[in-house]
Amino acid sequence: MADPRFFVNKGPFSVQQLLSLVDEGADIRGDGTLEVVDVAPLSEAGPQDISFLDNRKYISAFEESGAGACIVAPEFADRAPKGMTLILTTRPYRAYARVAHAFYQSATQSSGIHPAAFVDPGAELADGVSVGPGAVVEADAKLDNDVEIGAGAIVGHGVSIGAATRIGANASVEYCDIGARCEIHPGVRLGTRGFGFDMSAEGHLDVPQLGRVILGNDVEVGANSTIDRGAGPDTVIGDGCKIDNLVQIGHNVRMGQGCVVVAQAGVAGSTELQDFVVLAAQSGVAGHLTIAPGTQLAARSGIMRNTEMGDKLAGNPAIPAKEFFRQTAVLAKLTKDRNRKD
Amino acid sequence: MADPRFFVNKGPFSVQQLLSLVDEGADIRGDGTLEVVDVAPLSEAGPQDISFLDNRKYISAFEESGAGACIVAPEFADRAPKGMTLILTTRPYRAYARVAHAFYQSATQSSGIHPAAFVDPGAELADGVSVGPGAVVEADAKLDNDVEIGAGAIVGHGVSIGAATRIGANASVEYCDIGARCEIHPGVRLGTRGFGFDMSAEGHLDVPQLGRVILGNDVEVGANSTIDRGAGPDTVIGDGCKIDNLVQIGHNVRMGQGCVVVAQAGVAGSTELQDFVVLAAQSGVAGHLTIAPGTQLAARSGIMRNTEMGDKLAGNPAIPAKEFFRQTAVLAKLTKDRNRKD
Amino acid sequence: MADPRFFVNKGPFSVQQLLSLVDEGADIRGDGTLEVVDVAPLSEAGPQDISFLDNRKYISAFEESGAGACIVAPEFADRAPKGMTLILTTRPYRAYARVAHAFYQSATQSSGIHPAAFVDPGAELADGVSVGPGAVVEADAKLDNDVEIGAGAIVGHGVSIGAATRIGANASVEYCDIGARCEIHPGVRLGTRGFGFDMSAEGHLDVPQLGRVILGNDVEVGANSTIDRGAGPDTVIGDGCKIDNLVQIGHNVRMGQGCVVVAQAGVAGSTELQDFVVLAAQSGVAGHLTIAPGTQLAARSGIMRNTEMGDKLAGNPAIPAKEFFRQTAVLAKLTKDRNRKD
Repeated sequence: MADPRFFVNKGPFSVQQLLSLVDEGADIRGDGTLEVVDVAPLSEAGPQDISFLDNRKYISAFEESGAGACIVAPEFADRAPKGMTLILTTRPYRAYARVAHAFYQSATQSSGIHPAAFVDPGAELADGVSVGPGAVVEADAKLDNDVEIGAGAIVGHGVSIGAATRIGANASVEYCDIGARCEIHPGVRLGTRGFGFDMSAEGHLDVPQLGRVILGNDVEVGANSTIDRGAGPDTVIGDGCKIDNLVQIGHNVRMGQGCVVVAQAGVAGSTELQDFVVLAAQSGVAGHLTIAPGTQLAARSGIMRNTEMGDKLAGNPAIPAKEFFRQTAVLAKLTKDRNRKD
Repeated sequence: MADPRFFVNKGPFSVQQLLSLVDEGADIRGDGTLEVVDVAPLSEAGPQDISFLDNRKYISAFEESGAGACIVAPEFADRAPKGMTLILTTRPYRAYARVAHAFYQSATQSSGIHPAAFVDPGAELADGVSVGPGAVVEADAKLDNDVEIGAGAIVGHGVSIGAATRIGANASVEYCDIGARCEIHPGVRLGTRGFGFDMSAEGHLDVPQLGRVILGNDVEVGANSTIDRGAGPDTVIGDGCKIDNLVQIGHNVRMGQGCVVVAQAGVAGSTELQDFVVLAAQSGVAGHLTIAPGTQLAARSGIMRNTEMGDKLAGNPAIPAKEFFRQTAVLAKLTKDRNRKD
Repeated sequence: MADPRFFVNKGPFSVQQLLSLVDEGADIRGDGTLEVVDVAPLSEAGPQDISFLDNRKYISAFEESGAGACIVAPEFADRAPKGMTLILTTRPYRAYARVAHAFYQSATQSSGIHPAAFVDPGAELADGVSVGPGAVVEADAKLDNDVEIGAGAIVGHGVSIGAATRIGANASVEYCDIGARCEIHPGVRLGTRGFGFDMSAEGHLDVPQLGRVILGNDVEVGANSTIDRGAGPDTVIGDGCKIDNLVQIGHNVRMGQGCVVVAQAGVAGSTELQDFVVLAAQSGVAGHLTIAPGTQLAARSGIMRNTEMGDKLAGNPAIPAKEFFRQTAVLAKLTKDRNRKD
């Protein structure tokens, strides 16, 4: 069970109740009146727990699981242990997410303006806004309903934040507009100065960075990630983008909807990621490029030119992933051959 | 126009007035009495805007631009649309920077010690210092004229900061001396413990890190970057160095003047970057090396040995950039040949 | 001498006194009654300083050093300048660490709850706890003896922290239990949400992250590093692990004891690093892997499969380091040959 210091368990629920949370098309096999008290991994779940199977790797754990109930794709239903109640769905991971949301909420519900926060009298706060201890909301900021500002976070002058968005501890958001239901994690820096200057031996000269950062709705930005404001145009992050920890997004970057950028990846200035681009961990994209919808870049790889829709790339400079692994194999073979000759 | 919540427009200016800001050698072609109200990109500029052309890629945008005035190199003057007033200079990007500085200043001018800041009575603050809400200035810190400490920033015990330097929101600066006119962006960590310890199976043992971080004048350090203090010697960053976001600088590193370190790059301990070294994004330099003046390292590349003046390197381990791209092509060719044979 | 603004020198000590701090087996050659006032590098040390030789590269500096005393391995004793007093030990770097600890302590000893801190009345603070200005300790947090919370740091609801652990400036620790004598540096993020969601074109759906971060004793986490809490299981960092700056540790990662993770490296979710694994700077390990004890990964390299005990790997995907350098040489040779033919 999740640590009750941090999470409140709202169970029990009957399997039938949980079914109602799952996207339509799901079905029960077994006893829908069964009450479950918790979610748990297959290997640890007991008769009062509900688990899920999402990955073929874990089929034998499923076959041996003691879980009372399990969310599983129909094709694996017949592998279930006897007596296990099943929620059958083609998307078990998504269904598990909904069930886990039903079971748990954070134990730390903040509310109201903490006495150790500073909110400028010129800021506008809608109903239900909470501001944690040590946090700062500067003048002319506008916070919509149910916005949560974490302890020690800084909301700069004039920033607007949409309903139910959360800003994590010690994050700072400046020169930006943030949509609704976003999660800005601790230590994030939004709206910082872009890295724009004229290089010269007599001294580099800063070019004013006059744009903003615009975040859509349902955007997540991971801990200690940085998104620079635009140089003149804005830096724009589309609806539903998921950005992990320690990611760098340069000035003027535009991201379409639903892009995923994994930890420690970076996107250089003025590049466009179109919808549903995926950049794996520690990868990078050079500046001034257009990355086509659905492009996927492998971990530790670097894109140096525009891509085509659905490209799957790896290496540095990135090439089609299959080709990258073929080249890797050929170089290994050539090296082996040469050693044999020597 | 830049968002007035964030930037104050100080125009209009006549082209003649703007010319006076540009380094000598610039000249006007056309109507110097023309008044312009804003800066704008070529594609968006109207008859009351001034734009600039710095990159051949945008020549057609220049030819079709509706800008009233434009900053451009003399060799492109004849491509200008009819009636456009030109500021001719060999360095249009630098000239644009000066013009944009003239037009805009931040809308958030802080001043004085905010009531929600904590300044230790033992700190020395010169005239014009501002300290934002939630910021902390500890004992024996010395802040010269017009230093700005952002909201939530921490200035450690004994730290000295030169005139007109700005420390961003939620940054922390400890065990360091910072020059004048520096920009330390939000979330920067200066003076943290270097990663020095004796490794042992019985338990790694920390080696005290007894040096400082010394920043010259006009240094920029990007958001969430980290610069460790020296182990015994100091970590030294020379005048005019520009460091981007999420960069790591190890203990005892010495950087000459004017070095540029782009986002997510790193320099390992005790390495020296001599003047005007450029490290592109996500690159790295191993420890205990001497990197000669003007060395340029490509993005996602890693230097493992000393370099010669003006080297242009790429790959990992880094080799001359031309050689790197040649090797890349040869491996692709060999792989193709082998596939054909199979 | 270390800057007295930042460090207090507690000398002088006789060489005999210092010997008593060094692990048994050390010995003096020369005058044990000699008093030394400071530690210093070989090249700068004078007759009242003690230095050390740990790296063959510096033997000539040792031979020419003016240090009054030096810590050195027995095999180099005969190279010492005449009159230098020696502490002979097989582990001179470790001995130097102990001597330097004896000489110096930080000049900034905090104590008690600063009036500009906020400590929730529901938090439990043992004797000797200090909380800096601007710091926040939320309800139900438990801080053991002598814990130090730096300026602006945030200790979340319910977090427990072991004796003598220090949390740096502007760090935030949530959903976690931290052992004794840990060093959590400025800007660290512990316990942030793991990057877990169901990807879908209709909108990615967050999966609740219900685990914690568990840190053992004597763990160091470098500035601005991030460690996500588990998805269900916990993220666990073993005793004595050393993590450098800007490192990312994903959800459900388990690290054994004494692992070393150098700056800007990353470990993806659900991977296990067994005891004494070393990941050099800017390297990465993919998710769901088991990395055997003593595995060493070179800088800028990436592991994509399980490893064997003591593996020394380099490249991306990582292969045995010797093989990596052989492949690098072969590709260079093939490219040269081909150029000659062209």
